Amino acid sequence: MTQPFIDQLRAIVGAPHVLTEGDLTAWEQDWRRRSRGKALAVVRPGNTAEVAAVVKACAANGTALVPQGGNTGLAVGSIPDATGTQVLLSLTRLNAVRSVDTDNLTMTVEAGCILQNLQEAAEKAGLLFPLSLAAEGSCTIGGNLATNAGGTQVVRYGNTRDLCLGLEVVTPHGEVWDGLKGLRKDNTGYDLRDLFIGSEGTLGIITAATMKLYPQPAASLTAWAAVPSMAHAVQLLALAHKHLGAGLTGFEVMGRFALSLVAKHMPQLRVPFIDQDDVPYGVLLENSDSESEEHARARFEALLETAFDAGCVQDAVVAENIAQAHQLWHIRENIPLAQAEEGLNIKHDISVQIPRIPAFVEYADALLQREIPGVRLVNFGHLGDGNLHYNVQAPADGDPKAFLREQEDRVNHLVYEAVAQFGGSFSAEHGVGELKVDKLQKYQSPVALSMMRAIKGALDPQGLMNPGRVLPAV
Amino acid sequence: MTQPFIDQLRAIVGAPHVLTEGDLTAWEQDWRRRSRGKALAVVRPGNTAEVAAVVKACAANGTALVPQGGNTGLAVGSIPDATGTQVLLSLTRLNAVRSVDTDNLTMTVEAGCILQNLQEAAEKAGLLFPLSLAAEGSCTIGGNLATNAGGTQVVRYGNTRDLCLGLEVVTPHGEVWDGLKGLRKDNTGYDLRDLFIGSEGTLGIITAATMKLYPQPAASLTAWAAVPSMAHAVQLLALAHKHLGAGLTGFEVMGRFALSLVAKHMPQLRVPFIDQDDVPYGVLLENSDSESEEHARARFEALLETAFDAGCVQDAVVAENIAQAHQLWHIRENIPLAQAEEGLNIKHDISVQIPRIPAFVEYADALLQREIPGVRLVNFGHLGDGNLHYNVQAPADGDPKAFLREQEDRVNHLVYEAVAQFGGSFSAEHGVGELKVDKLQKYQSPVALSMMRAIKGALDPQGLMNPGRVLPAV
Repeated sequence: MTQPFIDQLRAIVGAPHVLTEGDLTAWEQDWRRRSRGKALAVVRPGNTAEVAAVVKACAANGTALVPQGGNTGLAVGSIPDATGTQVLLSLTRLNAVRSVDTDNLTMTVEAGCILQNLQEAAEKAGLLFPLSLAAEGSCTIGGNLATNAGGTQVVRYGNTRDLCLGLEVVTPHGEVWDGLKGLRKDNTGYDLRDLFIGSEGTLGIITAATMKLYPQPAASLTAWAAVPSMAHAVQLLALAHKHLGAGLTGFEVMGRFALSLVAKHMPQLRVPFIDQDDVPYGVLLENSDSESEEHARARFEALLETAFDAGCVQDAVVAENIAQAHQLWHIRENIPLAQAEEGLNIKHDISVQIPRIPAFVEYADALLQREIPGVRLVNFGHLGDGNLHYNVQAPADGDPKAFLREQEDRVNHLVYEAVAQFGGSFSAEHGVGELKVDKLQKYQSPVALSMMRAIKGALDPQGLMNPGRVLPAV
Repeated sequence: MTQPFIDQLRAIVGAPHVLTEGDLTAWEQDWRRRSRGKALAVVRPGNTAEVAAVVKACAANGTALVPQGGNTGLAVGSIPDATGTQVLLSLTRLNAVRSVDTDNLTMTVEAGCILQNLQEAAEKAGLLFPLSLAAEGSCTIGGNLATNAGGTQVVRYGNTRDLCLGLEVVTPHGEVWDGLKGLRKDNTGYDLRDLFIGSEGTLGIITAATMKLYPQPAASLTAWAAVPSMAHAVQLLALAHKHLGAGLTGFEVMGRFALSLVAKHMPQLRVPFIDQDDVPYGVLLENSDSESEEHARARFEALLETAFDAGCVQDAVVAENIAQAHQLWHIRENIPLAQAEEGLNIKHDISVQIPRIPAFVEYADALLQREIPGVRLVNFGHLGDGNLHYNVQAPADGDPKAFLREQEDRVNHLVYEAVAQFGGSFSAEHGVGELKVDKLQKYQSPVALSMMRAIKGALDPQGLMNPGRVLPAV
């Protein structure tokens, strides 16, 4: 019954690009190995026209489609379900940089381009593509757009949404919308671009995008500050905004326990100030300067002096060279890996208004420690955006698998209720996927949900685009 | 038949705030006096709950609603039609600044707040609200959001869309969506915020917004450069991006004829370099510095020196003080008034990719001069965003009214076809309103239009929200 349909897909993209047999783990299992699905077929179109033809065929056949980029998402949004009835549409063959326009400060790229390749393409043209996140070596720009990815440069350049000037999209009807004009101002009707960005493949398939580029800074310096409390970290952020203006391109906070895991499992990384017991938080700051390294250093030192005087920095070190700067960033980037080395943990990706973060952390820490004795809190994240990866590690003694099995729902409940109480979001930058569909139903405004359902129904009336992600399947 | 309905509206907002008699010109005539409508009633709710109740009453009665802020729009989007059946919903009584949060760098404001008052509220708190445009003394933030207004600071801070973190909206069903969390990262479902921004009141009523604030620069300097061609102006822009980075907060270009109108009708404004016949364009640059005025001046001078050496600046002056800076900006701001003094003209608000602007201007100038002998081109705008107000003034001799009557459609056709040929937009920052509904149908992608209609139908199934604006009435 399905063979004629599979044959049709083969005719569109070529037989070698329709996979139905062999080990399909790379496409069927999610990044964190929380879930494993089964695809009717893995289909790998080579260009936008093929994507459109595949979508049309699926629409005619009533077959659901799950788009996938690098499959590095953290919310189970890009693997098929277990029914074996869904087409997994892999976009990785759409990997051309169509153009880099140094005068327009844009590049037009296909959805399957790997983020790091785009950073390098911009650099080669003497420009900066500032999107940067842990998975950049394997995630794709299509996935970044579909999930509105954040990362470490948001404090200056915004989320992926803010870096995008236009999209090319295959609609659920298999039509191609070419929105790649590359204009910085264009008020001609509803903002479809931003509707598709962050919709996680549930409204259509992003096949290409025109992204903003920036001048490369003349110098980029990194500093590490020891701060006496989360409140002082927030105070330091305000000072950094004031002193560095748009020069502030990174502001990460890391709790002592998170850093101690790096020090324990990756001793070669040499975590600054980790031996000083009175340092509860480390802050990583990046200052990008359009003038010179000398100027950047002077501005950085003026900031840190003011911060010392204000009592919000205990100690600090400014990286002397790029190697040292990389090493400091490496510590930050390795926290998730150090966590994994330590054992199982429960991850959160939450945001609250920046000034409320200290009170939130104090409240949530106390709550969890009271409710689940022995729990260990791995708290780090993009403080410059009010975004914390507030992760919960199993107690040091006991069975971590049993902890996860027995406590995960409860831990999530406690954390998300606390976030709601502080007016925050249960998903700052990772999206909803399948993992948090119930959370969206619970915490998103009913009025907003009702509009989202109306939009989904209007654009994807058959409900074939990544069903059950973001919104419950109808 | 309508009296019970009017009484119902009076019961909701109070009798003094439902106007049906007397001179309603202020609400019924558009800013440019191109069009005059007749309202069933002008209704002036005092808070969001009243807006919701009015919308519910209109929905139940099948009455169309036209929301209005300062009524300064340029595309006829905020006045009632001529039927006398539409409710004109004036938002100007919703004018509270609900909060200014200096730590979160946000302010939450009601739709009817006048833009200039918000700039001042931010300044009073030691911060900057960068949205700035000609009508700022009377336009409202609700209107700025509904039309995604641009203005003079877009090169650094983006359009109104980029300055907004969240909205409060009354839906076509009269429900209130509270999206005012004030978070910088929140990936919890479809981006309703950006869907409402720029939708010109056709999907719901924006009643409040949380807007981003920025640190005030330590110094802001203005320069005026004489440049030998539009191509050199574009080259100067690239140099300015490279030298000033995020310090470049304004970049306006003004053609010689536009400046000569200011010199003629407002001689007290003293246009720089206007007596030099070999200066076809003036460029206004603004450099905002987070460090000091001294530093700003040094950076500016370094830029201008490089630009001289590269041959893209003929002469330049940096304002010595704020008064001088204001005077230079005043020249730019007075071009529309000088145009009006000179007589009737046909306005355009177009954008093309920045590197294509010189070729576009050369092509369009030649085309118009060939097709309509004697026509005079008033070309100025936000070159930093690729946005030109490419206006066409009647020939110096002859009857300007006859010119407008006979040539307006043809001039529009020539300009918009040229814009389309160069891959640009017929509405960069003013929106579509009623004036350009036919242009949207002609120049917007049919696939995009079909999605826009689907969204409109899904969110406003009765078609009562500002009907006939953006999209044709169904």
